[in-house]
Order: sequence, then C-alpha cells, then structure tokens
Amino acid sequence: MRICDIIQKKKEGRALSRDEISFFVNGFTNGSIKDYQMSALLMAIWFNSMNDDEISALTLAMAHSGDTVDLSGVDGFTVDKHSTGGVGDKTTLITAPIVAACGGKVAKMSGRGLGHTGGTIDKLESIPGFNTSLSKEQFIKNVNACGLCVVGQTGNLAPADKKIYALRDVTATVDSIPLIASSIMSKKLAAGSKGIVLDVKTGSGAFMKTVESATLLAEKMVSIGKSAGRKTVAVITDMSAPLGRAVGNSLEVEEAVRVLRGEQSGELLDVSVELAANMLSLVHSKSVDECRADALRSINDGSALEKFRLAVGLQGGDGRIVDDLSLLPKARFKREVTAAESGYFEFCDVQKVGEASSALGAGRQTKEDSIDYAAGIILNKKNGDFVERGESVATLYTNKEESFELAESLFKLGTAVSSDTKQGNSPIIKTVS
Amino acid sequence: MRICDIIQKKKEGRALSRDEISFFVNGFTNGSIKDYQMSALLMAIWFNSMNDDEISALTLAMAHSGDTVDLSGVDGFTVDKHSTGGVGDKTTLITAPIVAACGGKVAKMSGRGLGHTGGTIDKLESIPGFNTSLSKEQFIKNVNACGLCVVGQTGNLAPADKKIYALRDVTATVDSIPLIASSIMSKKLAAGSKGIVLDVKTGSGAFMKTVESATLLAEKMVSIGKSAGRKTVAVITDMSAPLGRAVGNSLEVEEAVRVLRGEQSGELLDVSVELAANMLSLVHSKSVDECRADALRSINDGSALEKFRLAVGLQGGDGRIVDDLSLLPKARFKREVTAAESGYFEFCDVQKVGEASSALGAGRQTKEDSIDYAAGIILNKKNGDFVERGESVATLYTNKEESFELAESLFKLGTAVSSDTKQGNSPIIKTVS
Repeated sequence: MRICDIIQKKKEGRALSRDEISFFVNGFTNGSIKDYQMSALLMAIWFNSMNDDEISALTLAMAHSGDTVDLSGVDGFTVDKHSTGGVGDKTTLITAPIVAACGGKVAKMSGRGLGHTGGTIDKLESIPGFNTSLSKEQFIKNVNACGLCVVGQTGNLAPADKKIYALRDVTATVDSIPLIASSIMSKKLAAGSKGIVLDVKTGSGAFMKTVESATLLAEKMVSIGKSAGRKTVAVITDMSAPLGRAVGNSLEVEEAVRVLRGEQSGELLDVSVELAANMLSLVHSKSVDECRADALRSINDGSALEKFRLAVGLQGGDGRIVDDLSLLPKARFKREVTAAESGYFEFCDVQKVGEASSALGAGRQTKEDSIDYAAGIILNKKNGDFVERGESVATLYTNKEESFELAESLFKLGTAVSSDTKQGNSPIIKTVS
Repeated sequence: MRICDIIQKKKEGRALSRDEISFFVNGFTNGSIKDYQMSALLMAIWFNSMNDDEISALTLAMAHSGDTVDLSGVDGFTVDKHSTGGVGDKTTLITAPIVAACGGKVAKMSGRGLGHTGGTIDKLESIPGFNTSLSKEQFIKNVNACGLCVVGQTGNLAPADKKIYALRDVTATVDSIPLIASSIMSKKLAAGSKGIVLDVKTGSGAFMKTVESATLLAEKMVSIGKSAGRKTVAVITDMSAPLGRAVGNSLEVEEAVRVLRGEQSGELLDVSVELAANMLSLVHSKSVDECRADALRSINDGSALEKFRLAVGLQGGDGRIVDDLSLLPKARFKREVTAAESGYFEFCDVQKVGEASSALGAGRQTKEDSIDYAAGIILNKKNGDFVERGESVATLYTNKEESFELAESLFKLGTAVSSDTKQGNSPIIKTVS
C-alpha cells in the first residue's frame, strides 16, 4: 500500500477502505508517512469529504492509536459529555453532580483552556486544594464512591488525532465536518464511557455558525458513536451569547454552585438540565422528559449539590465552598464597563468576550502560560436587554490592573448597543439521536 | 500575509493575487513556508485550478526564484524548443541544426533522462568527446559561431519549480494543468530565449492522454509565454508509439544523423520539420509553410547536417560521426524480440518500451546511475504493421547480457499483436498559437 495511491484515490472522490484508513493513520502516527503527504490527503478529504463508513474507520483508527481508558472497574453505567466549545460554558460542573445524584457514573477526562475558551480542569483547579491529577486507581475509586470524578487527560490518548489536528491547524483544513467529527469522537471513544452526550454549539460564538451545519456535525458524531457500540445523543445549543453570567474560572465555579443551590434559573440551568437529562436517559433507558424531572429534583432536594461537595472533597478540594463562596479566590481589582449610549445590548462576537476574559488573566495564549483563577467577567446584561447610557453592562475582574485596557477594548469589540431589539435565541435548539 | 489565509482563499475557490503568489513561492523557496503547507495549497490548486493571471504570476515567480540565463550576447533571434516528454524523441538533434542552417539561434539547456524518458544531454554525450558542460562565455560563443549549442542545465535555474515539483511527485498533485504549465514555462522563461516552441505530446505514451487535455495544456503555456513577452507556439504531436525507430542514446543519434542526411522519412522527419518550421516562423516572422520548405531544403542541400557536424566539433565531439556512424558506441550483445503469433503489431503502452530501453542500460532509475550509451532498442515494426509469427518486431542492444530477460518482458508488456488493424494516428495533430 502506498500513501500516494491513497491520496490519489481520495482526490478522485473514491471512498477509502478501512485498511487504507488504518494504513495512513498508523503510518502518520509512527512517522513513516510524512506531514506533507498527510496535509495533501487532508485537503483532498476537505474537498471530497468521507462517507459514514470512512468516518467511522478514521475515528476508530485514531481512537486506537494510543492508550484507551479502561472503565470496567466502575460499578454502574458510565456516561460522558462533550461540548464543541463556547464561552462561559460551565455545564460540566453542574451536569456531572446531577447525573451522579440520579444514579449515573461520570468518569470524565477534561482539558485545559487555550485561547478564548476556558477548560473545565482550570475551573476546578480554582477551588483551593482541588487535585485533577489522580492515579487511575484513585480515579475509578472516586467514581465508585460518589458517582463522579473529573481529571485532566492522562496517558497517550488518541495521539494520531493530536498529530493530525496540529497539522490541520496550520494547513487550513480545520473546517471539515468528517475531520471534526472523527477528531472529537476518537477522544471520546478512547475515554471509555458507555454513553456519550454531545453538546454541539451553534451561533456567532461557535465553530458551527448555522443550525444546519451543527446538525450535520451532530448527525455524523452520533452515527460514529452508535457504530462503535456507544449510546450516543447530541443536543444542539445556542452560543450566540456566553452561557450564563460568569466568564473566568472561580467566577464560573461560583455560578455553577449557585445553580446547584437552586438560586439561579435561566439559560445556564436550562442547558445543564437538558444535557443531564439526556445523559440520564442513556443511563437508565428512560425518556428524556422523566429524566429532566429527576434532574430538577436533584437540584431542589440538594442531592446534586451534595454530590458536588463530596466530589470536591474526594479530590482534595475544600468542600466548604458550596456553603461559603468567599472561600474561592477573589480578584484585587475590578472595573465596570458602561454603555456609551442607551439602547438594546447584544453580543455580536462572543469570541471577543472570551478573549477579554483571557486578557484579564483567566486564559492562556500558549500552553505554558499560568492562569489567574480569580480573573474574568461578570455579565450584567444579556442579549436584548435595554441599557441606559452610563449603566454597567459588565464587571471585569483581575489581579493585573494593567490588563483592564486591552480587556475592555476586546469586550467592546464583542458587544454592541443598538436601537433595535434582537429576538433572543432559544438556548436549546434540538436533539439529534 | 499568512500562508494559512492563502490556502484558505484558494480552498474557497477565490483567485490569488500576484503578491500572494510571490509570497508563497518565495517563502517556500527560502524555507519559511513549510512543505506540509505547500502540499495543502497544491492540493487546493488541484481542485480549484488557477485562472490565467494566477498561472502567469506563478510562472514568473518561479522563473525569478533563482538564476536566469542572459542571452543578450547572442547575435540574432534565439529560439527554444521543449517537449513534454516521450519515448524515442530525438527531435532536438534534428531541429536545432535545421533552425541554425536557416538563420535561427538555438541556445539550449537540456536535461538528462530519468525513468522511462531519455534526455537530450545523454544522447549527445554518447558522441565520443562531446562536452555538455561549457562555460557561459563558451556557450554564447558557440551559438554565435554555428547557430546552435546544447548544454546541460547549469546554475540555479527556477529552484522554486524544482522544490515544488519534488513535493508534487510525492503528494499526488502532478496531474494539474496550471501546475504543469507553470512548471515547464518557468524553466523556459528562465532559459532566456525570445521564441519558444512547445511540443505537447498526446496519446498512450504521453502524460496528456487525450487531444483535449493536450490542447488545454498547450493553450495555457502559450498564454503564459505571450504574457511574459516571448513569442510562443505549441504543436500537438502524437505519442501513441515511440517517435522513429530508435530508442536509446547512440542509437537515437544515429537515427537523427540519418534523418539529417536525408536518408529517412516518416513521422520523425515530419515532426522534426514541423517543429523546426514553427521555430523558424518565430525567428523570421514568416509563414510556417514557407519555413517548412526552408527546413526541408536545409536537409536536402546538406546545410543542416553541416551545422550538426560543426556544433559537435565545437563542443569537443568527433564530427566525423556524421559520415561514419560506426564511430558511435556499439553494444556487445543483441537479441531479437519475435512475434508469438501473426497479426497486426501495436504499441499499447509506450512507457513500457521506454522502461525496456532503460533496463537494457540506456536510462537511469536514480540520478546517480551511470548510462550504457550503446544500449537501447531498434523497432522493426510500427503501429499497424502486419507481422508473421516468429518475425522480429524489435532488436534489443546492451552491454549487460543479463538485462535481456527483464527488458524483453517489459517490451512485451508494452506491445501486442492483434487480429484487428488499428488506424495509425497522424504524427502532427494541431498547432496552438
């Protein structure tokens, strides 16, 4: 088998066989296939796409290119959740305790933030003492003890995907649905859970700008998951505004705790409950409607909050934060961003809001940067809210006072005040199963 | 300017600007643009093609990526010829002396053979004493003295093309008309002649299998040449059979001399005269018909042969070969290939005949291989000839007796005897100007 022939075949629009796909994934991972050949093949895939069999084969080959997580030691049905990325998305902190409280098992590996998106691991590490680097044994033990455990990615999970993604990033081949779907699903399959709920974001702050493209991506991922024997469902949610009011690590933990305490309703609660209900539906093979009721009950009766407190404690963190939010890190400096004119407030570029938070210290530009856990933004206005001239639309927090200027400019680039009120989107758009 | 944006633009089907094209050609030549980015861009060009402005800009950028040949010292109108490659193509050895005899100046750089195609430089070097490595001054002096000089490529001509071609070869992006056209023309423009005649081959032994694709390539190249201020014309010729009867270096020199002596008519004479006439038409701004008559006259009156003798002598070669062909290297071994059955002989895969000659020692597999100048094939039958069972269809020559077996198998793979007679193609198909 020769890589040139495989490139030629895909270039001519013919479907690749499983063997051909394994050949190029393994060859690229071990270095026998060169990056210039892989990038030519990726561009040919961008143009001619892949059918469902090819996408499945690519996903499986990448999932098996390195370590896979063995969750057979978990007592119960394991269910994972993945979001395609957004600003202010702290749903894992809310859904995992809900699912655990309702009998599911969340044994989750999460990532750190880079660029304008935050990472769940950074958010959790803003809790004093919280340890995201557990041994494999401790990880399984915690899941069995309290129903959830979220750790940083360990081991060599889907190295082929990592290497291919790095190449796509510098060769303008990121925006390909088969490549996105297989990249996400290869990591999810390697991560071992029996059920997978995908939160596919759409809107100005998401990679998939339209509901149509988000739906197509969701369909491909659900198809891959099912053909690999995992229960899989996708929920398409709105990302035309940050999710909730807080952006930044400890600020997001604080907001998640308020939701778990039953003190905050709105989009964040709605999306979190919807995702949790879909996860529970996979766990218990019950209807999503029944599971939605269970999920809300776990908030109202405090059982989800207790799961969160327990999980934090089992990972070395200070569980008292759920009662006393002042124990979370606080920023030394804050600044109000005020409206320059009266009108209807709106987010026109959500990514810029993420960049503003990152500039305040909440995010990293490179993997080596350190994070200011207390930095971030509290949004005082939502899409479509009327705002008076001079009124605060957001509060910026940082320990690095000199960062306010850049952060405020970025925030203003991402938001606007207009004379027309804009119809807000529904936070939950549809389910693909 | 960022290469990722340029890849993205071409991927989306938008035309690149001259500045963007210069940026990626220069960046790739100096190493600041990586091969994996270039290969992604080449694949995007394969899919979305380039318009005439883009092809011109690419050609010029590659032509100016290294040295260019200054032919201003030549007294007269310089005219070059380029063939897209075939088996048994020794037309340069015939056209250059004709053009010189009729007042044109041929200051030509030629290549060595690789794989199944022979190179003019190898053919000339089979003449005892012939030197193809002249100083630039000697090169110009010889052209002024006798009207023609053919040397090996010196200097750093179109290094961008060399680097891009090497990448295309291993990423399945060779078969792109804008990339082929710009590659050929960048070298022709750098080589400095005022007039350029392109011999675009079509048929089973050519890269362009159909007249339509050959015509499209010819049109692109003529357009590039003209927009760069060179008089340019293309002749589309047949390569569904080797050109002439000889394949292999000294065997081809011998055949060329016979044609120049006026001893051999047929396709080789016809194609050589047609190319020479088109070259002369550019030189003298006369009609091709008039120039065709001039060309034939230069053969009949011996003036073309005298130019050849003179040129050989001026390059250190033994000019007596034009009178005594026995002075050329001869092979120690020969073998007849006979027909296994009676019927109509045909070439079904001309490339295999080239590979057979190469296997006998006439060609190289890698650039470092040495050549057996006397090795090759004399074809005793042409496309459509009737052959009796046991009759010789070709004679193989080599100094390496053990090569016969492989060579004969290859030759037989490239030829057939069938019960139907096939209509022979006309050797000269059309002119594109």
